[in-house]
Amino acid sequence: MSHPSYLGPESFRKAVNELAKLPGVGEKTAQRLAMYLVRADADYAKALAESVWGLKTGLELCPQCFSLSDKDLCSICLDASRDQELICVVEDPSDLLAIEQSGYFKGTYHVLHGSLAPLKGVGPEQLKIHQLMQRATDRKVREVILATNPDVEGEATALYLARLFLNKGISTSRIAMGIPMGGHLEYADHVTLGRAIEERRNFNPR
Amino acid sequence: MSHPSYLGPESFRKAVNELAKLPGVGEKTAQRLAMYLVRADADYAKALAESVWGLKTGLELCPQCFSLSDKDLCSICLDASRDQELICVVEDPSDLLAIEQSGYFKGTYHVLHGSLAPLKGVGPEQLKIHQLMQRATDRKVREVILATNPDVEGEATALYLARLFLNKGISTSRIAMGIPMGGHLEYADHVTLGRAIEERRNFNPR
Repeated sequence: MSHPSYLGPESFRKAVNELAKLPGVGEKTAQRLAMYLVRADADYAKALAESVWGLKTGLELCPQCFSLSDKDLCSICLDASRDQELICVVEDPSDLLAIEQSGYFKGTYHVLHGSLAPLKGVGPEQLKIHQLMQRATDRKVREVILATNPDVEGEATALYLARLFLNKGISTSRIAMGIPMGGHLEYADHVTLGRAIEERRNFNPR
Repeated sequence: MSHPSYLGPESFRKAVNELAKLPGVGEKTAQRLAMYLVRADADYAKALAESVWGLKTGLELCPQCFSLSDKDLCSICLDASRDQELICVVEDPSDLLAIEQSGYFKGTYHVLHGSLAPLKGVGPEQLKIHQLMQRATDRKVREVILATNPDVEGEATALYLARLFLNKGISTSRIAMGIPMGGHLEYADHVTLGRAIEERRNFNPR
């Protein structure tokens, strides 16, 4: 049919429009979410609205590691029980959260806010690289784990940082790449499989 | 690992919590949405927050058809070009939107806000049935289309309403049930297929 369809009253349409801008949320899902909110109690809608707005007003970057923080230094940088001489370098705050949720890492972080991509105009000055090197100059750093993504830009960024730290005499390591746990060799792509063989580890059962 | 994992600063965690309460949004998606909002510009976060809150403050029910409205009568009830003597009865505002978006219906609606479910304590008094009968008494109504869902409660509600309208001498119709357009007979459930055969239509090619 060619005539414009009725999409509900103004405030409903507006909410659908705004919700549909979220990643992974289409028109249909936005409508479903809006309808849910219409039925939800006012307390929840208010809490949701306030928390969304709070993301823009209540958050800043930690001046040391540049992760998200709601006070000056973030709680990880302030945590004396964490190894402050071990820095894990990641591209984005979401990478930090992913590593934290694995529960394996008890050092600190440094968030670059991107990766080197000369073709997109992202050079070292656009990332928090200067601040990372300054941090390694000001305080004792034992090891830097380069946890940028295993794609072209992430690899280039890791290589770039590894050279800078080599010049400073600080040892670096790179997160392991290989077959994901629970994965199957037959479904792994060639590059991953090649890498997994190349970086095989000594296996010594007792 | 057993220790609680770090989920980001307070305002971030709060937004993740609230977003994760939305239907179909899990913890992981909520985190992704929150991260998207952190990066989005403040104008968008503000518009989203305001439109969400607007769903609770800017909407009421149309006093005639009980669909969502942001002024007194909704725009469908106010539309003189629509057939005001033809009423399509639906369970929920979202059903109204679905029918509107099909673009085939040019009458008016009546939203019951549920269906008869005695076991859940939903009787005729809990729905907008009294208001529907009053509406059919106050104004001329030619036909009532019963577009409740084709499930147990929806069928019972349609039957209940059909009897009330029969007593009033107003004719009712029920939306057609059968194989969905583009569907395949082999995948249709038995009840739908049986209904489709029972309600077969005369087919007269020229």
